[in-house]
Amino acid sequence: MRLSFEVTRKDPDTHARRGTLFTRRGRLETPIFMPVGTAGTVKAVDPQEVLALGFQLILGNTYHLMLRPGTEVVAAHGDLHDFMGWGHSILTDSGGYQVFSLAKLRKLDEEGATFRSHIDGSLHLLGPERSIEIQEILGADIMMVFDECPPVDASLEKLRQVCDRTTRWAQRCLEARTERGGALFGIVQGGLDVPLRMAHLAELGALPFDGLALGGLALGEGPARTDELVSAVAPHLPPAWPHYLMGVGLPQDIIRAVGSGIDMFDCVVPTRNARNGQLFTWDGPIQIRHAAHTKDTRPVEEGCRCPACSRFSRAYLRHLYQSSEILGSRLNTLHNLYFYAEMMTRIRAAIDEGRYASWARETLERLERPAVAK
Amino acid sequence: MRLSFEVTRKDPDTHARRGTLFTRRGRLETPIFMPVGTAGTVKAVDPQEVLALGFQLILGNTYHLMLRPGTEVVAAHGDLHDFMGWGHSILTDSGGYQVFSLAKLRKLDEEGATFRSHIDGSLHLLGPERSIEIQEILGADIMMVFDECPPVDASLEKLRQVCDRTTRWAQRCLEARTERGGALFGIVQGGLDVPLRMAHLAELGALPFDGLALGGLALGEGPARTDELVSAVAPHLPPAWPHYLMGVGLPQDIIRAVGSGIDMFDCVVPTRNARNGQLFTWDGPIQIRHAAHTKDTRPVEEGCRCPACSRFSRAYLRHLYQSSEILGSRLNTLHNLYFYAEMMTRIRAAIDEGRYASWARETLERLERPAVAK
Repeated sequence: MRLSFEVTRKDPDTHARRGTLFTRRGRLETPIFMPVGTAGTVKAVDPQEVLALGFQLILGNTYHLMLRPGTEVVAAHGDLHDFMGWGHSILTDSGGYQVFSLAKLRKLDEEGATFRSHIDGSLHLLGPERSIEIQEILGADIMMVFDECPPVDASLEKLRQVCDRTTRWAQRCLEARTERGGALFGIVQGGLDVPLRMAHLAELGALPFDGLALGGLALGEGPARTDELVSAVAPHLPPAWPHYLMGVGLPQDIIRAVGSGIDMFDCVVPTRNARNGQLFTWDGPIQIRHAAHTKDTRPVEEGCRCPACSRFSRAYLRHLYQSSEILGSRLNTLHNLYFYAEMMTRIRAAIDEGRYASWARETLERLERPAVAK
Repeated sequence: MRLSFEVTRKDPDTHARRGTLFTRRGRLETPIFMPVGTAGTVKAVDPQEVLALGFQLILGNTYHLMLRPGTEVVAAHGDLHDFMGWGHSILTDSGGYQVFSLAKLRKLDEEGATFRSHIDGSLHLLGPERSIEIQEILGADIMMVFDECPPVDASLEKLRQVCDRTTRWAQRCLEARTERGGALFGIVQGGLDVPLRMAHLAELGALPFDGLALGGLALGEGPARTDELVSAVAPHLPPAWPHYLMGVGLPQDIIRAVGSGIDMFDCVVPTRNARNGQLFTWDGPIQIRHAAHTKDTRPVEEGCRCPACSRFSRAYLRHLYQSSEILGSRLNTLHNLYFYAEMMTRIRAAIDEGRYASWARETLERLERPAVAK
């Protein structure tokens, strides 16, 4: 069995769902957030720290890993779990998104995408079969289909073609998967067009996937439009499957999307923003570099039990940031990941207790209160 | 009592000594190595990790900390221990070395040095009294006198003047120390001139210090000349005091200096070289970026129980290095610091067992064997 999913509780007032997801590596509680381990490491932290924060599922990037260190290096160790010292579940993306956003695309046809590496200019082909082959070498517990990723403002005609091709590629991914392959999720495209999304969703929902994702979002359209699309489409995703919203997002985006029935999230926001000195709190984010923190001996968030807040002050973190000290990136990352882990815990508790609507309303109000009032 | 030191064992064939050093924070075993925590953090690692590696004494830099974050910020937290989350002993340098090497010197006279910060160009005065004042604010358990640091190739006449002034400044440091101040070490100058060093040593040895350091070395004269000077001078340091060789060095430099009677060391080598991908092993250092490590699933050193070697391969560390991943700097630093901690443990054991000469000979032979033979 590659994956099983059970919805254990439905919120009475929203589409929020509590669930249990079993990969071949273990049990996961949903809604769940996956830290992003782009290049074989969740940036700035150790896998033991990721686990200690409560995460048991991380995302790995097929595109980055195929280019560096390359599948042969990973395979010499066993798989990605062995290479990076992470014994828990891994979901890998298909590489599609990065091919269209990072690489220099040379040719795109029914076969797949031919592109040049953004690292060294070397030429590569990535299509459905190759993507699945790589994801199997990486030992992904959950794999994603190779999809075409159009710009968010593509024409309706272009979006329609993308959906059609993504469906054909999705079928080829299903066929390409071997016995060693993990679970496989389809990816619903269709830009911001709800009818197109609904049609694509229906097509993919008829295929034997283990879950469905909404792709092609959080690409610059802005959180309001993402939310609008998700709230219209997510409630229609196959109810028995896990629903994954790729690349989202800020705390408020996740809280809203959970209310629309999303079960799984990944985003670089907690880790990337940490390295840039933005730290999340329940009263909204703070910029640790601000002069206001110069002599502030309080932790980033009072009562926070993360490894940064339990031992270090805002002033110390600011000093590390100002001095470009590596420890600063790490402590900031630990704080933000802890915040996300804690947020997911609170989300699950609110659904379990049938009070997601009120919890979300109050939490969003607090998170989004203008900074001047703080 | 600010400090007590007891030599517990003398090696029969060399000048190596085993000792126990009590600061007001706790007991330390000598010979001891101090990781350098330049700007309030041992670069790339957490203080809990430094402690777990076995270190209980670190070095802090007065110059760096006075400029950023400034003494007021540190003082708002209590002292440097509180600011950086390190509950064990701290030795601070006096700032002298950095003023002469990093800052833009504006004026140097009997009062002290007026200089511009290398960070923001702000104007500062550092002299004996101010240095001690800052070191007391930092809460240093061991403080160093403010000394003048001439280039290693200064004329004999210049070196003589430096020694004279350093002695006068050392006396002022002793007078400036208040009740809250930690132990205070004098610094022997004199370049590579043995008679000058001996004379300065005698002068400082007559003052009520808690220990003596050899300063003004490891400044580009090369390890052979450092070793020559240390082996001539160190055996004449006051036998009841701890002997500290500032800024040294590579594993082989430390092993040789212990044989000349040095008890204390600090150096950025294990941490800085780690960030540059040089990893120490008992068969000499390796460069982790080398292509030879691309698919090497072995640890950096077989049998090494450091946090890097116990969980990660050379290939993984190489990948992190090539990808400029922060985790790479951290794991490399942990490995090198573990190596230094282990080296000091082996040094102490060899002295305890009266076999330092043979241990040092065999270890140096192995460390310095040409890389081609490995």
